[in-house]
Amino acid sequence: MRTVEWQNGVVKMIDQKALPWKFEVVDLPDYKAVTAAIADMTVRGAPAIGASAAFGLAQAAHHSAAEDIPALLRDLEEAAVTLKASRPTAVNLAWAVDRLMQVATNGSYGSADAIREALLNEAQRIADDDVEINKRMAANGAALIKDGDTILHHCNTGALATVDYGTALGVIRAAFEQGKRIHVLLDETRPRLQGARLSAWELEQLGASYDILPDTAAGFYMQRGEIKIVLVGADRVAANGDFANKIGTYQIAVLAKENGIPFYTVAPTSTIDLNLASGDLIPIEERSKDEVLSPYGNALVPAHFHARNPAFDVTPNRYLSGIITENGIARPPFTESLKRVVAGEQV
Amino acid sequence: MRTVEWQNGVVKMIDQKALPWKFEVVDLPDYKAVTAAIADMTVRGAPAIGASAAFGLAQAAHHSAAEDIPALLRDLEEAAVTLKASRPTAVNLAWAVDRLMQVATNGSYGSADAIREALLNEAQRIADDDVEINKRMAANGAALIKDGDTILHHCNTGALATVDYGTALGVIRAAFEQGKRIHVLLDETRPRLQGARLSAWELEQLGASYDILPDTAAGFYMQRGEIKIVLVGADRVAANGDFANKIGTYQIAVLAKENGIPFYTVAPTSTIDLNLASGDLIPIEERSKDEVLSPYGNALVPAHFHARNPAFDVTPNRYLSGIITENGIARPPFTESLKRVVAGEQV
Repeated sequence: MRTVEWQNGVVKMIDQKALPWKFEVVDLPDYKAVTAAIADMTVRGAPAIGASAAFGLAQAAHHSAAEDIPALLRDLEEAAVTLKASRPTAVNLAWAVDRLMQVATNGSYGSADAIREALLNEAQRIADDDVEINKRMAANGAALIKDGDTILHHCNTGALATVDYGTALGVIRAAFEQGKRIHVLLDETRPRLQGARLSAWELEQLGASYDILPDTAAGFYMQRGEIKIVLVGADRVAANGDFANKIGTYQIAVLAKENGIPFYTVAPTSTIDLNLASGDLIPIEERSKDEVLSPYGNALVPAHFHARNPAFDVTPNRYLSGIITENGIARPPFTESLKRVVAGEQV
Repeated sequence: MRTVEWQNGVVKMIDQKALPWKFEVVDLPDYKAVTAAIADMTVRGAPAIGASAAFGLAQAAHHSAAEDIPALLRDLEEAAVTLKASRPTAVNLAWAVDRLMQVATNGSYGSADAIREALLNEAQRIADDDVEINKRMAANGAALIKDGDTILHHCNTGALATVDYGTALGVIRAAFEQGKRIHVLLDETRPRLQGARLSAWELEQLGASYDILPDTAAGFYMQRGEIKIVLVGADRVAANGDFANKIGTYQIAVLAKENGIPFYTVAPTSTIDLNLASGDLIPIEERSKDEVLSPYGNALVPAHFHARNPAFDVTPNRYLSGIITENGIARPPFTESLKRVVAGEQV
């Protein structure tokens, strides 16, 4: 199944907190449950939370008691604010909600029910488009991977981080499905261990060759010349190519540059925020210290110990070899190339 | 108590696998038990394993049934080989064993019992010297820390990593005891979490201000300008200043240089191996993947998942601002300055 799906007014999601131990699907009855599932990371990954928020807003319309358009729009506005506040860093969330709100308010529907139907169609389109866009990115990126390459990957950017197929891990999957003999080094990605728990689980399903690394060891394998390319995802790309991604990405980018290793982010154009001039304007979420001290209930140290837990960092554009999008690979200077891919031009 | 002590033929050690949950002391009846305790990291930290190996060899002499010197030396040679093979990277282990073997074989003792007594005295001297050397390093290094500084620290280099007081964490402790208002960011240091489990525990005892960081977040705080200095330990320093230390050290060194932050290792001269021209000659231990997948019995992912677990990395000398020793701070070019500090010259 897809990471997130609509079924008769219920949003169904793979519970990513339960993996790799159990494959469970949760039923979310309303947009407040969807908001909570985004906030507690039952679903995570910028494209997946974008699609989830879209279905959540469609659900708000579906369940609203409003009989006329103004009343429905008031309910939708409230749901939109709630959904957008669930997590601050990934732009896909706001992008998806805004896209649905534009549909709701564009004046072309004659009744509240017509808007309800249009919103569900639009959410479904976002989900369907995501899968198709991922496959285009995968094809664009797989051309960079050579037979025999070892690839470093951070966090999880696979089918689970999207509606299906994946961004950076989608590129890796495409190379594998093309028959290239590759090996993937997966940063475990503390504190939430998305690399060890989710990416390793996905590569187990696929039958691809991989090893989990402690986050302390990525530089070691770069220094030894074992890593040929680094592929990561993105939660928000600014107009100049600076981008926010899972905490630890910046470090890997610096190490890749120091060791002369190509470093790419794989990001659909929905992740590119041309309204932000540079990465220092991207809001960075700090999450509970419990995720560090006691991941998934495994207490590593006593609960009163002190810890910090920034969830993302920003990698300046100078460390980036390119941004792999569905419209081709944007190259420096990004201020030019990102405008073109966002406008739909093939580069 | 000290990290390792001798008591009536028994080597007593703080069990570092049990911390921070329980403070337990284990009694090791013979040198084979000491060897096992070094290998399974009941005791760790280059100076602490050096002292432990010395007591282990003294114990081999103590328990040997040999009645004459040649028979005792044969037993000691066997014990020395066993002890040295327990872990490959830290030079202090071989350094301590060799120092005792020189005492045993220098021809100045007239009986096996005289050698037994001399070896115990020498092991005790290594332990006592370690504490005194650490305090001298701490005084030398504390001068680099300013009131108000935030310091980044990797792994554990405190009292537990030594006989007492510590190397890099000893410098931090001295600055704290001098009344400087400091804050310490502790890399948790996956896979074995020495930063989160041991360094945080030591700073809790001391009452110093600290936060544990996931290893993914060190670069984030450097990039923000919050970290003023980085202090780490060393397991072996080559003649040119390249040094092996806990996995993850190399990454932090690269990030410190990229962000213009002074980066120091704190290493007694016993850690400096002038016989090795450069760091690429240092043997790097790879430990069980279980330490990554299931730290201290907390299974993070299924046991059949694949992982790598290099225990150390080598930081090239070009990333080092200086090496803080008991004889002063060695500065580049290290090929010159290290010769001088090893010869006992104050620099």
